[in-house]
Amino acid sequence: MRNIRLDICYDGSRYRGWQRLPGKDDTIQAKLENALTRILGENIEISGSGRTDAGVHAQGQVANFHCNSDMPCDQILRELRKFLPEDIGIHSVKECAERFHARLNAREKTYLYRIWNSDAPCVFQRKFVTQVPEQLDLAAMTRAARYLEGEHDFSAFCGNPKFKKSTVRTIRSVRVFGTAGEVHLEFTGDGFIQHQVRIMVGTLLEVGLGHRDPDSIPGLFGAKRSEAGFLAPAQGLCLQEVFY
Amino acid sequence: MRNIRLDICYDGSRYRGWQRLPGKDDTIQAKLENALTRILGENIEISGSGRTDAGVHAQGQVANFHCNSDMPCDQILRELRKFLPEDIGIHSVKECAERFHARLNAREKTYLYRIWNSDAPCVFQRKFVTQVPEQLDLAAMTRAARYLEGEHDFSAFCGNPKFKKSTVRTIRSVRVFGTAGEVHLEFTGDGFIQHQVRIMVGTLLEVGLGHRDPDSIPGLFGAKRSEAGFLAPAQGLCLQEVFY
Repeated sequence: MRNIRLDICYDGSRYRGWQRLPGKDDTIQAKLENALTRILGENIEISGSGRTDAGVHAQGQVANFHCNSDMPCDQILRELRKFLPEDIGIHSVKECAERFHARLNAREKTYLYRIWNSDAPCVFQRKFVTQVPEQLDLAAMTRAARYLEGEHDFSAFCGNPKFKKSTVRTIRSVRVFGTAGEVHLEFTGDGFIQHQVRIMVGTLLEVGLGHRDPDSIPGLFGAKRSEAGFLAPAQGLCLQEVFY
Repeated sequence: MRNIRLDICYDGSRYRGWQRLPGKDDTIQAKLENALTRILGENIEISGSGRTDAGVHAQGQVANFHCNSDMPCDQILRELRKFLPEDIGIHSVKECAERFHARLNAREKTYLYRIWNSDAPCVFQRKFVTQVPEQLDLAAMTRAARYLEGEHDFSAFCGNPKFKKSTVRTIRSVRVFGTAGEVHLEFTGDGFIQHQVRIMVGTLLEVGLGHRDPDSIPGLFGAKRSEAGFLAPAQGLCLQEVFY
């Protein structure tokens, strides 16, 4: 059997997220599996590097699937581009090693959160940013972000109250940068639990708005969900890259 | 009576263009007039710097209107931002000279046309670019663009076969520049007749694709519509700025 890797981007605005849901057609995974099943004439199941929430975007999602078809990769690419809606794009279709698994082999991921930090209109980027009109204190946010780096128990940043497994994760870097009316928060780590990135963003926003002391961040590790900040909206978040 | 200037941006994707049409609600002018009439409690008619076609965007459209209301401009701005849909944005609301007229006083306009010059997916920018997967010859397009500059009879670039007035216009500059997988065509001139920019873009694209000789451009001045290139899609076009 062949093992094929897909590099994918999507505007997640109108989807219920990555993961296929029983009886629902409006997930990214379902759109891809349905297209591939039709193109290759065999039942295709894909593994993504991870789930993205409803409304979250991806610039560099990775998935793989096995198939018997001998259709060349460039033809699969062309057919996929024909069949997929305009808000799902395929960067590439490539043969990969038999043992490659998009989720299990993922070493690190980078997520970008875009904040439109202005009361000026953002009509062209509105689906990909979260607007915060109040001026943000980037120095305080940068200070708070430093504390998030490293290996910590992110229990307070876990959106699933029934989550049974370890909530310890390692974040290699959190970058805060301001650029032309936008503030970008970029997170790179070995993995993120459900809603972790969006709750870290909510917490950093509270710091930036002066509602939370940056030096309070270390007190959140191992704490309850209610101690950390709010869940930032999905639309500002984008899975930028998966590293193998 | 007060005279008030609006600086406006919009994502034109779902509109029938700028100009109010009898019985239709989905034009930019209608959305603005309806919102202002409601906010100010008097019947408001606005004058735009010019019409944009259905599907064309604006970063810097300008309009003005007269009113009796004494509502401060910053309050009108806040109210407009509340009432308008998310694809119409207001940069500013300002008191202006009694004699200012957004259309009659417009001295020059700049339009930008964005071409996504790649077969890579453009899911995030798809509503604001026209995709051309074939590689474009920028040197040939730049050469052709030079001929368009100056005062010429743009009869072959007029989309309205019943247009009775002069088709002579002056184009101060046509810039062609490539940037990270995109080609941008920027036109600045004293005014443009219906479809002129999009037909110039179609003509330059034919040059860029090798289907038309750049040196054939001067032969188009004063010629028939059928001599010039195709009408490029509306979605790649944006009214960038109006100069007074």
